[in-house]
Amino acid sequence: MILHDFLPSGNGYKIRLTCAKLGLNYELKEYDITQGETHTEAFLALNQNGKIPCLELDDGHCLSESNAILLYLAETRHSELLPSDPLQKAEVYKWLFWEQYSHEPNIASVRFWLTHNAMTELKEQMLPERIQQGQAALKLMDDQLSKQDFLVGDNLTLADICLFAYSHVAEEGGAYQLSDYPHVQRWIKVIQAQSWYIPITYNPSVS
Amino acid sequence: MILHDFLPSGNGYKIRLTCAKLGLNYELKEYDITQGETHTEAFLALNQNGKIPCLELDDGHCLSESNAILLYLAETRHSELLPSDPLQKAEVYKWLFWEQYSHEPNIASVRFWLTHNAMTELKEQMLPERIQQGQAALKLMDDQLSKQDFLVGDNLTLADICLFAYSHVAEEGGAYQLSDYPHVQRWIKVIQAQSWYIPITYNPSVS
Repeated sequence: MILHDFLPSGNGYKIRLTCAKLGLNYELKEYDITQGETHTEAFLALNQNGKIPCLELDDGHCLSESNAILLYLAETRHSELLPSDPLQKAEVYKWLFWEQYSHEPNIASVRFWLTHNAMTELKEQMLPERIQQGQAALKLMDDQLSKQDFLVGDNLTLADICLFAYSHVAEEGGAYQLSDYPHVQRWIKVIQAQSWYIPITYNPSVS
Repeated sequence: MILHDFLPSGNGYKIRLTCAKLGLNYELKEYDITQGETHTEAFLALNQNGKIPCLELDDGHCLSESNAILLYLAETRHSELLPSDPLQKAEVYKWLFWEQYSHEPNIASVRFWLTHNAMTELKEQMLPERIQQGQAALKLMDDQLSKQDFLVGDNLTLADICLFAYSHVAEEGGAYQLSDYPHVQRWIKVIQAQSWYIPITYNPSVS
């Protein structure tokens, strides 16, 4: 498999973490999204949406949308990362969709704007509302993690890997303080202590 | 089952359409989201995220995030709306996540702002970029539908129901012209001609 990715991307990192947990090998092909490298004709043939990450399978099929790729990997490997119980599975789905709608646009986008010198006058004006919504998202996770060890049930699932990716770097850029969310901080440490854990900066191609 | 919903919501309508296709009965409980009716203590006990739609199952479990509910309904009913082939399934997942990230915030939010008198000075400034991204989303769908009858494979899937919900009302508010997307228009008519089709205004509780 070839993972078309950008190393600082949390969306890509979710897939790298899932591969690490499942023991899957892949080649990492990097694109600098700040230089328009995902808008070339060659890249658009892989993903018409012009975005990393996408996962090129050995038969040439190219999968896109990070959380769709997580579901594909867990399902085809029959991994417990996706519970078989329909209600627990629906809870995993819920967190994955919630992440893309209510967490990523506020936590990941704000981090990108602030760390990649990507602010504009309009983004400056949007920032307070985004940060407010990002704080609400972290608070909602914190409330859930005050009641249980992981986001769904008693075990680590795709929901944890998905939400971990951008939550653990939420402070980058300075918009968020993780010390405001002690249960999220505890959960971050639990994930970082897993035997298969790799940091977001880890590149399998240069190890 | 009780569907907690707001009739003009496309996110709710996806679930109503899926129930219609699958022949599932439910009670509709309406909330006026413009009056804060989903931020009461009683509603937050159903969905801590304070948003419709949520589907209360007969055992009291309450599912949220519209696309997670679609997956739950199709899976537990073993419906062909969710293909069993892993690659086709991954494509359905892809469209569902893409809808929440790249379609809904541009098409649905813009429609809501313009039809519910919800414009603010900041939203006025955000509007041109949102419309541009919404046009790109409709164009991407149009390109896909120029090559095949439905979004994934040869048959109607959850991807079509999910994307239909806000695409078919994209013109409400005046930001989009569906005549710019002839393949989307053709596909809308095909879905509206299905025997189980119900309009977004259909309320099963008053029929």
